[in-house]
Amino acid sequence: MAAEIVNPRSDSSTDQDGGAEPLDSFDPAFALHRGGKMAVQATVPIRDKDDLSLAYTPGVARVCTAIAEQPELVHDYTWKSSVVAVVTDGTAVLGLGDIGPEASLPVMEGKAILFKQFGGVDAVPIALDCTGVDEIIDTVARIAPSFGGINLEDISAPRCFEIERRLQERLDIPVFHDDQHGTAIVTLAALRNAARLTGRELGELRAVISGAGAAGVAIAKFLLEAGLGDVAVADRKGIVSRDRDDLTPVKRELAEITNKAGISGTLEAALEGADVFIGVSGGTVPEPAVASMAKGAFVFAMANPHPEVHPDVAHKYAAVVATGRSDFPNQINNVLAFPGIFAGALQVRASRITEGMKIAAAEALAGVVGDDLAADYVIPSPFDERVAPAVTAAVAAAARAEGVARR
Amino acid sequence: MAAEIVNPRSDSSTDQDGGAEPLDSFDPAFALHRGGKMAVQATVPIRDKDDLSLAYTPGVARVCTAIAEQPELVHDYTWKSSVVAVVTDGTAVLGLGDIGPEASLPVMEGKAILFKQFGGVDAVPIALDCTGVDEIIDTVARIAPSFGGINLEDISAPRCFEIERRLQERLDIPVFHDDQHGTAIVTLAALRNAARLTGRELGELRAVISGAGAAGVAIAKFLLEAGLGDVAVADRKGIVSRDRDDLTPVKRELAEITNKAGISGTLEAALEGADVFIGVSGGTVPEPAVASMAKGAFVFAMANPHPEVHPDVAHKYAAVVATGRSDFPNQINNVLAFPGIFAGALQVRASRITEGMKIAAAEALAGVVGDDLAADYVIPSPFDERVAPAVTAAVAAAARAEGVARR
Repeated sequence: MAAEIVNPRSDSSTDQDGGAEPLDSFDPAFALHRGGKMAVQATVPIRDKDDLSLAYTPGVARVCTAIAEQPELVHDYTWKSSVVAVVTDGTAVLGLGDIGPEASLPVMEGKAILFKQFGGVDAVPIALDCTGVDEIIDTVARIAPSFGGINLEDISAPRCFEIERRLQERLDIPVFHDDQHGTAIVTLAALRNAARLTGRELGELRAVISGAGAAGVAIAKFLLEAGLGDVAVADRKGIVSRDRDDLTPVKRELAEITNKAGISGTLEAALEGADVFIGVSGGTVPEPAVASMAKGAFVFAMANPHPEVHPDVAHKYAAVVATGRSDFPNQINNVLAFPGIFAGALQVRASRITEGMKIAAAEALAGVVGDDLAADYVIPSPFDERVAPAVTAAVAAAARAEGVARR
Repeated sequence: MAAEIVNPRSDSSTDQDGGAEPLDSFDPAFALHRGGKMAVQATVPIRDKDDLSLAYTPGVARVCTAIAEQPELVHDYTWKSSVVAVVTDGTAVLGLGDIGPEASLPVMEGKAILFKQFGGVDAVPIALDCTGVDEIIDTVARIAPSFGGINLEDISAPRCFEIERRLQERLDIPVFHDDQHGTAIVTLAALRNAARLTGRELGELRAVISGAGAAGVAIAKFLLEAGLGDVAVADRKGIVSRDRDDLTPVKRELAEITNKAGISGTLEAALEGADVFIGVSGGTVPEPAVASMAKGAFVFAMANPHPEVHPDVAHKYAAVVATGRSDFPNQINNVLAFPGIFAGALQVRASRITEGMKIAAAEALAGVVGDDLAADYVIPSPFDERVAPAVTAAVAAAARAEGVARR
């Protein structure tokens, strides 16, 4: 029998058997999670036989027949075009690492309710009991008819890159690895506003990214696409550069397109004179390295809960400081992007999420800040109600412009 | 671009482009299905930063860590133990046959909202883009960590038998093919009450089943387990008997355990002197064959929308008549069983649904009729609010008694 948690803040409907083994009973996170965080609801009434005969047999058969004859009708007459699968294999969950599918479920449920709360998008957690690339791809492709989009989540690098690419090649619905692109989009939005605030062009900025996992790789590529002057990426062994012989295929590709300046060596060395620091790795950047950055630098230290550079230190040297934390200004939070991105893509039944749609999302997100732009306000709050509608509209329009919209 | 349906009863938010191709615009089934029939909802608030820090990062990490250390906590702190996957491959949808995964979605959504409405069980449609037995088993097993149970639906025979068996062997959550067992359970409930009404024991009844698909095979086995005297099953070529050399493995097994009377030949021949007719095949049974049944027979003609024996004909010869239709008395409807069966199994975190739990469900369902038992009331209405609680309690108690409950 499963041990019961004695939790005085939860309702008392559960057994409290002799095997009780209290966790931190007064932690409100456990109280809130008791029984999960989400539910399914019917959006049509089933009050009587007549309702039943329309929502189920025999009436439903006419709808099935119509879809069988005209497959695109599935978007009109089912919830397919409003529902996204939040798919993980549990290998890179938050900062916790490979904790497996069951233990990842609270995060996937959290993601699902954020989709609903901020984007009006229905989302279903799908935690997979497999970690092989082919297995994951096959499994997601096979369940895809039920969904309008696939949000990949907390799948470790470098597998996440291949999984996303091959799944998108195989499916005609958007496949989006949020740990990569959500982070990259919000980072670019903040960076655009920081540049605007300080009167600089993206093309004149040199950025250094600490971390060559899913987020670091995606941010590097995305910033270059957006026109950043130069980007260098550091992993644990230092700057990813062509002279290294220990690079994975993904990092070899990164070495080809990043680091125009040809820097080798440590992160600290690369930071000297750099305009932007982007931390997605954890660890701590020594204060002298921060001090060595260019005048008016931007420090985006996004590790949670411990930023790579504490904001108090960063503010001594940088013009704009952002973190991943909600208790400091300028929080780089993926929830600013993914709900609107999928809402926009689903609205126009996009077959994929293109680079242009991501750029449009970042621009729309940056635009919400408007004339209130300030050093402590380069990115909106997750609770700013203008965010999701702006991102949704921009993504939908970009999908149409790029020819991937189906309505 | 997808053709738009001009539907005057739906809201006007959709484009009505030149490609419009009206279906039956005034069919209320299409109006009701517009946009799908279900949604996801958060059951916890996300009003501000504090809420977000509990439902998502950083608070959620503590819950994930607890589950990683003590895996059974996933049942306490996620929606796993309240959510069922409604899985199909779209190969045997209603009477429509192999219409594929997308076209099956309206049925799966309907099933999902019936789970919620009648059993309080959350359910998610999963329509699979594969039909191979191994593929289906692997796929469902890989997504299983996300769910507390698997309801298989509208998967064609004989694959459905192997898929259910092997999946249940592999998983520690209930796997239940409703087309088999739901139908069998409700049939047994009606049969028990018909026997009670007419003062007979199940052991003295000889039944003939028309149809050797998922429902026919499951009903035959289940009635024998419940103690019926004899059961014969007819497929399109006649009675399944040991002297036939054209039987599939499933039907060969059936031939071993059914048809004690050793009947060969046609359905009509088997009906002579039979006490019970159970139709799950469609087609029509000639009136003389019905007339040849034993005095006080039971005719359960469950094909939809055309019962194998029209009730007006059946009533001329039979003591009790049931159909699958809601507009005649005694509707044999699976919705009487599956919501309570899963609700009961989930309540006690059953690892499987045993034969004893199914028998208990049938007895509880029959018991709801109580002293109101009559020829036109051997089975309750789907809208009888006593049904799901009675089935739920009986199934939970049986799971405990059979040692498959985990709380």
